[in-house]
Amino acid sequence: MVDDAPPRANHPDTLPRLAARLLEETRARHPRVHALTNAAAQAFTANLLLAAGAIPSLTVAAEEAEHFARRADAVLVNLGTLDAERRAGIPVAVAAAREAGRPLVLDPVFVEASPPRLAFARALLAERPAIVRLNPGELRALAGAAPGPAVAAGFARETGAVVALTGEVDVVTDGDRTIRIANGHSLMAAITAMGCAGSALLAAFAALHEDHSEAAAAALLVLGVAGEIAGARAAGPGSFPAAYLDALHALDEAALSDLARIS
Amino acid sequence: MVDDAPPRANHPDTLPRLAARLLEETRARHPRVHALTNAAAQAFTANLLLAAGAIPSLTVAAEEAEHFARRADAVLVNLGTLDAERRAGIPVAVAAAREAGRPLVLDPVFVEASPPRLAFARALLAERPAIVRLNPGELRALAGAAPGPAVAAGFARETGAVVALTGEVDVVTDGDRTIRIANGHSLMAAITAMGCAGSALLAAFAALHEDHSEAAAAALLVLGVAGEIAGARAAGPGSFPAAYLDALHALDEAALSDLARIS
Amino acid sequence: MVDDAPPRANHPDTLPRLAARLLEETRARHPRVHALTNAAAQAFTANLLLAAGAIPSLTVAAEEAEHFARRADAVLVNLGTLDAERRAGIPVAVAAAREAGRPLVLDPVFVEASPPRLAFARALLAERPAIVRLNPGELRALAGAAPGPAVAAGFARETGAVVALTGEVDVVTDGDRTIRIANGHSLMAAITAMGCAGSALLAAFAALHEDHSEAAAAALLVLGVAGEIAGARAAGPGSFPAAYLDALHALDEAALSDLARIS
Repeated sequence: MVDDAPPRANHPDTLPRLAARLLEETRARHPRVHALTNAAAQAFTANLLLAAGAIPSLTVAAEEAEHFARRADAVLVNLGTLDAERRAGIPVAVAAAREAGRPLVLDPVFVEASPPRLAFARALLAERPAIVRLNPGELRALAGAAPGPAVAAGFARETGAVVALTGEVDVVTDGDRTIRIANGHSLMAAITAMGCAGSALLAAFAALHEDHSEAAAAALLVLGVAGEIAGARAAGPGSFPAAYLDALHALDEAALSDLARIS
Repeated sequence: MVDDAPPRANHPDTLPRLAARLLEETRARHPRVHALTNAAAQAFTANLLLAAGAIPSLTVAAEEAEHFARRADAVLVNLGTLDAERRAGIPVAVAAAREAGRPLVLDPVFVEASPPRLAFARALLAERPAIVRLNPGELRALAGAAPGPAVAAGFARETGAVVALTGEVDVVTDGDRTIRIANGHSLMAAITAMGCAGSALLAAFAALHEDHSEAAAAALLVLGVAGEIAGARAAGPGSFPAAYLDALHALDEAALSDLARIS
Repeated sequence: MVDDAPPRANHPDTLPRLAARLLEETRARHPRVHALTNAAAQAFTANLLLAAGAIPSLTVAAEEAEHFARRADAVLVNLGTLDAERRAGIPVAVAAAREAGRPLVLDPVFVEASPPRLAFARALLAERPAIVRLNPGELRALAGAAPGPAVAAGFARETGAVVALTGEVDVVTDGDRTIRIANGHSLMAAITAMGCAGSALLAAFAALHEDHSEAAAAALLVLGVAGEIAGARAAGPGSFPAAYLDALHALDEAALSDLARIS
């Protein structure tokens, strides 16, 4: 458990070193992530967390989500397949996470496609998530402006959340600092829940590292480098997910340092 | 998006050529398929659509299914794990698809096992699906007669839907023309949601090709040939799904023409 | 179907021989297992049953679970992601199984994490499950004592169920006899739903073999040996599940006898 972790002071780690260190800590300390996520992402999210060393739980029901969120070290809320059970359970889990002082990561999947989902996402932004991970279409819907690094930074200042804008180049910003990560593989866009599951690693790292901007960037670096290693091994989108989890499970600082493309 | 596609005139393509062309169009134009499908099939259905180049969405909730169905190019309804949320969401999505003029594919999974599900399926047949994909047990329950090509043709005339009766030999009929496809691999029966996910490709092709009988037959040919290629590579039912999606992702006209067994 | 199976007399099979025989019978007779299981386990559970030769169904809704449970040869209840639909459907399926005389397997996942789930599990124990499969944390919550073989045996006598306590060494006890199985692989703990899906094989074997203590031990032996074979082939937790189902599908008496570590 990570409850008694000392607050982490500023440190001189480069991002690959930090990413390697947080991955080692995840393997050693097994942070719990309670993920309220979409139906198509649940199994893969749990497997990604387990491959990284974290402990997943997935219950959505309001009656139980409170208990699971309270014992978790971080909570992930993903808005895919947003049904009545999820609409009821998510606010309960979010409140439990806030009371327990646990970081909340919000992934507003397909928020541009459904007005009720957009309204639900806006209400969650008022709950001060630590990190919001989204793609350009989702940022456009939430920020009401053409997506890009400047709009992401403004959205971070407006919401108080670290914004992790993912795409060919990932952009992480707290409104002040901005980190760009150019890792990843084209096959990652051809697998469902790849981004959704990745958001769970941002939650695990946010549980271990107080600077959530660095935590998000470190997690995206890990995911992007694992994707590149998997892309070199996989024969297509069918064999990619297994190769990706294998790569994540075996990832070390040498690979992170060799392959990182950060600016 | 395919909204502004010109109506497709009759054409002289053989089925393997048509299948290859529709697969190329799927890769180039990324039709959206909204799939209201069973809980065990959601992730694999999304991954099959992505491997083929289509864009999946999966939301079941009535409040949202309308929005997703309206922006989709085709809608798939699968009756597995038919819970209260699905019972409420499916009619909303079906109505939205009909209003938008989008083809509906119905997969009445296990309809022979549950009287409430059979009644629900009958009500959906009145909504004029473009294609009904089923196996012999499901056809027997719906048509009330021993399944076979003649009963399938009669059921197509009665419902106005193209009937895709799958088994060792797939039969596609609009009540007039009948196409038989003898491709596939025995391991396809040893993997859950293999048929369910395949139905989503029928929906994607139906969005691209007005002749839904040809679209269904072309999709079943693609699925059967991908299955044969995967069967030759896989070590068992565990490794089959990855090999299948890899094969689908790489499939081309040469393999379709070489391996097609059509009559 | 196995309905007309003759009651099985006592027999001199060793456990590997019995396990091989029950696996052969599963492949030949295709017992139906209706699994009310958690959202992250549904697809993998179905695929494990299919890889072993059994026929899965997964519907949770109360309206339909009754029909599916009644035509099944065994019913599995897993308490993960215990939402309102599952809370309503599980008692209906359990009652249908009891009326039809079908064995019930209970897997009280994460029962230590949520008081409402613990109460729900206690109510199910009163329905006389044939087998309860759990891990030490779950046994501690249900038995109110530090887990171990003696507490497991006491819990079996108290509940009338065979207790399958899984961990590095699996312990199967009916309160009288105790069997220990030391097979398995460390990667099995790094994949979600591995235990949940395995419980479905206990249900399939319980449908085929009246001595539920032997059935549970035989199933755990099969799962552990398949895990060892897969562990030797897999490159990590990503490739493990496919290797595991491939191994299960191909498993034979020679491998079971060679690799079994039983006491």
